[in-house]
Amino acid sequence: MSTAPTFACGPLLAGIDSPADLRRLAPEQLPQLCAELRDFLIHSLSQNPGHFASSMGAVELTVALHYVFNTPYDRLVWDVGHQAYGHKLLTGRRDAFATNRKFGGLSGFPNPAESEYDTFSAGHASNSISAALGMAVASQLKHESPRRNVVAIVGDASISGGLAFEGLNNASNTPNNLLIILNDNDMSIDANVGALNSYLAHLTTSKLYNDLRYKGFRLLKKLHLVNDSRKGALLRFNNSLKSLISKQQNLFEGLNIRYFGPFDGHDIATIVRVLNDIRDMDGPRILHLRTVKGKGYAPAEADPASWHAPGKFDPATGERQGATPDPTKPPKYQDVFGETLVELARQNPKIVGITAAMLSGTSVGTLQAAMPERVFDVGISEGHAVTFAGGLAKDGMRPYVAIYSSFLQRAYDHIIHDVALQHLPVTFCIDRAGLVGEDGATHHGAYDLAYLRSIPGLTIASGRDECALRNLLYTAQTDDFGPFAIRYPRGAGRRTDWHCEFEALTIGKGERLTAGHDVAVLTIGPIAGEAADAVAEARRAGIDAAHYDMIFLKPLDDELLAEVAALDCPIMTVEDGTRDGGLGSAVEDWLADHGYERTVCRLGIPDRFIPQGSPEQLRHLCGYDSEGILQAINKVSKK
Amino acid sequence: MSTAPTFACGPLLAGIDSPADLRRLAPEQLPQLCAELRDFLIHSLSQNPGHFASSMGAVELTVALHYVFNTPYDRLVWDVGHQAYGHKLLTGRRDAFATNRKFGGLSGFPNPAESEYDTFSAGHASNSISAALGMAVASQLKHESPRRNVVAIVGDASISGGLAFEGLNNASNTPNNLLIILNDNDMSIDANVGALNSYLAHLTTSKLYNDLRYKGFRLLKKLHLVNDSRKGALLRFNNSLKSLISKQQNLFEGLNIRYFGPFDGHDIATIVRVLNDIRDMDGPRILHLRTVKGKGYAPAEADPASWHAPGKFDPATGERQGATPDPTKPPKYQDVFGETLVELARQNPKIVGITAAMLSGTSVGTLQAAMPERVFDVGISEGHAVTFAGGLAKDGMRPYVAIYSSFLQRAYDHIIHDVALQHLPVTFCIDRAGLVGEDGATHHGAYDLAYLRSIPGLTIASGRDECALRNLLYTAQTDDFGPFAIRYPRGAGRRTDWHCEFEALTIGKGERLTAGHDVAVLTIGPIAGEAADAVAEARRAGIDAAHYDMIFLKPLDDELLAEVAALDCPIMTVEDGTRDGGLGSAVEDWLADHGYERTVCRLGIPDRFIPQGSPEQLRHLCGYDSEGILQAINKVSKK
Repeated sequence: MSTAPTFACGPLLAGIDSPADLRRLAPEQLPQLCAELRDFLIHSLSQNPGHFASSMGAVELTVALHYVFNTPYDRLVWDVGHQAYGHKLLTGRRDAFATNRKFGGLSGFPNPAESEYDTFSAGHASNSISAALGMAVASQLKHESPRRNVVAIVGDASISGGLAFEGLNNASNTPNNLLIILNDNDMSIDANVGALNSYLAHLTTSKLYNDLRYKGFRLLKKLHLVNDSRKGALLRFNNSLKSLISKQQNLFEGLNIRYFGPFDGHDIATIVRVLNDIRDMDGPRILHLRTVKGKGYAPAEADPASWHAPGKFDPATGERQGATPDPTKPPKYQDVFGETLVELARQNPKIVGITAAMLSGTSVGTLQAAMPERVFDVGISEGHAVTFAGGLAKDGMRPYVAIYSSFLQRAYDHIIHDVALQHLPVTFCIDRAGLVGEDGATHHGAYDLAYLRSIPGLTIASGRDECALRNLLYTAQTDDFGPFAIRYPRGAGRRTDWHCEFEALTIGKGERLTAGHDVAVLTIGPIAGEAADAVAEARRAGIDAAHYDMIFLKPLDDELLAEVAALDCPIMTVEDGTRDGGLGSAVEDWLADHGYERTVCRLGIPDRFIPQGSPEQLRHLCGYDSEGILQAINKVSKK
Repeated sequence: MSTAPTFACGPLLAGIDSPADLRRLAPEQLPQLCAELRDFLIHSLSQNPGHFASSMGAVELTVALHYVFNTPYDRLVWDVGHQAYGHKLLTGRRDAFATNRKFGGLSGFPNPAESEYDTFSAGHASNSISAALGMAVASQLKHESPRRNVVAIVGDASISGGLAFEGLNNASNTPNNLLIILNDNDMSIDANVGALNSYLAHLTTSKLYNDLRYKGFRLLKKLHLVNDSRKGALLRFNNSLKSLISKQQNLFEGLNIRYFGPFDGHDIATIVRVLNDIRDMDGPRILHLRTVKGKGYAPAEADPASWHAPGKFDPATGERQGATPDPTKPPKYQDVFGETLVELARQNPKIVGITAAMLSGTSVGTLQAAMPERVFDVGISEGHAVTFAGGLAKDGMRPYVAIYSSFLQRAYDHIIHDVALQHLPVTFCIDRAGLVGEDGATHHGAYDLAYLRSIPGLTIASGRDECALRNLLYTAQTDDFGPFAIRYPRGAGRRTDWHCEFEALTIGKGERLTAGHDVAVLTIGPIAGEAADAVAEARRAGIDAAHYDMIFLKPLDDELLAEVAALDCPIMTVEDGTRDGGLGSAVEDWLADHGYERTVCRLGIPDRFIPQGSPEQLRHLCGYDSEGILQAINKVSKK
């Protein structure tokens, strides 16, 4: 699977097959290595797309960490894994990097199953402090010798997530030597929001104190006055210095975590020096580095949000393939949603849009451009997004909350307790539902149908095409249906004529697309397209296959299912979600409740974690591309 | 349902049928009203048990809020609803309070379906800031006149939850007039933990600044120098005062929320004065009140954790019924878990216990008493509890994470992304699984079987009795099974001889309890007891009913299910969880996958939110007490 890159790798980087090789370099060589890493990233990612700007900003930090710490014995826990491409390149995966995010290749995020240097899953933000704290406490409980250092690297604004705060709040409760690096690039996928961000931006007022404290500490260390046994003295020194000089209490020190910074995160000499100085200190510490997302590549520095995951591009000009949508091709589902939301908001003044650091990813940004006062980007805070929507809905607004399916898992309780229990009219716009492709196991929207289905009073729907999505979004606000979940996949559908007139759908009504008597294929969502191809092919081969688009998982269409059951032919369900607990299980439940002794052949994501690959490859792997559906039709149908 | 109390209600309280009546009192009468409220709470709750200490601590705050604010037009959003009994008593529910937490009676938490004064669900902690922010922003978007004030009342340490932080971080992003009251009693259900708690305890260092600022503001207001149009001037005044006097930056002001306090939360005159002063200010504000949990009742002040929900007690002596376990009666499941965890921890040095502010509620406190260094109470931070456990497991420990089923919903993504995806050996000890009784809709552990079932690689089990629970807890650490979820209900089982020797169970093996050929009843967990009664009764009536204890929801027992399927008789499933998505659906999935054309009669929690009541009443309501099971057996069985 490993493919040789088609560009020259720098001489220093070429000699690094593991961090041990890196640690043999002289400090003066590190700037060149950083330049070579950036060059590699630019050329590699221009050909094989991936997350670009975050890793560019973390180059010096990455080199310094592997230079100073004894990885893999020391643990690096990356938070938002798309910072970690440099880490992959320095840890024996340089040649394999051409397979990044490809089926059978490297994962686009740190993956413990891939490398001992990847300590923890890092596809969902804000988890590093908690996970690293677990490792640091484990090391203490086991009295490990030599001391094992554990470093959490918090990047891309994931410090704003509630989980990160819970980790910070617990970091000083138990003896541990956790080091938290705050890779502060002022950005999540989009521009960072929230008061904490503004707080961090103004943390320079305490510079005098921090400088003095740091220089004082270095002096004490040089004089061999500082070591573990003198920690108490050092702390007293710091505290008195603080009360003498600082006019500010540091938010992190308010949480009993010693704070160092801010430092320039692109000054490799400084980072190495500071890391060496604070590496062996006891107790939790935070090192605040200011970095520039996209650093070292001018187009990305100028527009880091667009360059978060830019697709293929020309390294020389920065021209991005596919940056401008082609009107002759079907739009992405997220853009159908974004445009439709603007239309609806123009008609209905109660509608507001909410997202959690996914303005561009969900296209809620389209509404923001049109009506900024009616859009709320709450940062990496999925739980807050949902509960905030509950409050808005309680007092008369109609919030549309757009979050990726796999990230909405963070807000599961909030959907139940803060919305559904009160029957509040919040519309959940669940983007990236189903297999997402190259982002892999952490990002597949596999579970939403299953985890939403058992929530009372929740309407759950997915349209088979762009027009159906538009009509569902329209329908949700035509009456008080309570909470309403609408899922749609990553990427584009099949229609260019998607801009149809709105039509109100009947809640819980599906549609017979093709009549037949040999096998009934029931689908939900755009996977209908694959099923329709299979049904057409089966019919050409003489199998009288029927195709029903359920549209609604909940409530189910009693009439349509009674029609299906009356056919007395095999029933198949196809869904872009887990086989267990979603449409297939729901249809079985319905049949059982209505006294039909029938089996259902369920196609969907099998009961295991699915890796990265193209959506086509993965649907094939899971057996529900048109070929897999056809095979299943052949197997179950009477003929 | 309303029952007249058997004690005398104070004369002031007796005259208050709505907050409008309260607002007719003179300020000097408020202390007496507070005393009467406390008296009412003591006498009422001593007879009809409920949450005691939190509401006792919030008496002055509650009276002051309804006195100063124009409820229900102004919105009070209670966080941790067990603060809110006083609120119920002042808002027309005094006589009905004797039905508190009873079937058909008042909900033990604020419940929007019950009263217009209850603005939002408050069974799960930390949601008030986000919800109230939604309401405050809605009011701004609608340009409401008169101005609608929105107050979030954060109590019992729920400020430590990540959701509360996400709310704080977003509070200043959008124009709004949210007032946050921090009812700081230094306690969650158990003693509060975390750095934020220690920070709050030391916030007095800024007292000089706060005092001066507050007095300065009052002076300006008196002189009519302060009003909305002069807000800018006031802020500048505050800021310059701060930089002049304070040596501390306030954590909340670091998040752009104006801070007032700390004040004595039991000084009603001060609270009323301060609330009047800050009520009409613009922008988000936080008022920090120091209160004593259990205030006004000496036994509760001395031991607030035990008096969180004390059960029946003698108001005169403070003697609590059932405070000492009766060894002749079966213990609570949580205590079987707690004692067993200690035994296992003695045998296996890798085992640690984790809970999230439920030390006594989950009996993890038993391990803490024995081995404090191996217990981690992370405060109200379910997500962190799970991710932290993931980190511990990754580096060799065997964490047992004990969280109530309904609160574990907060950690759904963490179970998937931070544990299951990496196949880490974390044992989830899911307490309060199934119908919990008096705590009602927000607390029923209804969904865990459904929300866990679709997670790949997760073992999910529930033993039918205390010994089975012990054996599951034992088994989980005998090998590397990956993540392991063990659920058990609130309350006691049926056995006094529960302290059996450990026996390793085979993963995925169930047990035939009773052979039969007319109907096969499949159960999971202690609901087996109700089913066994029904099966015995059915057999007495001549129905040859079989009973199978599945023990494992995942993996299912292929052999046992093949035996069941081969019986060719009706199949019933009974589970203390949602009918949809749990054991019943799993058995249907299995039958379909194995080609059996069979219906399954599923008993469990129906697809709606279930109110409060005794567990017996609620099981009857849901149709799966022994009577309901027997009826179903009669209906489906051949005879």
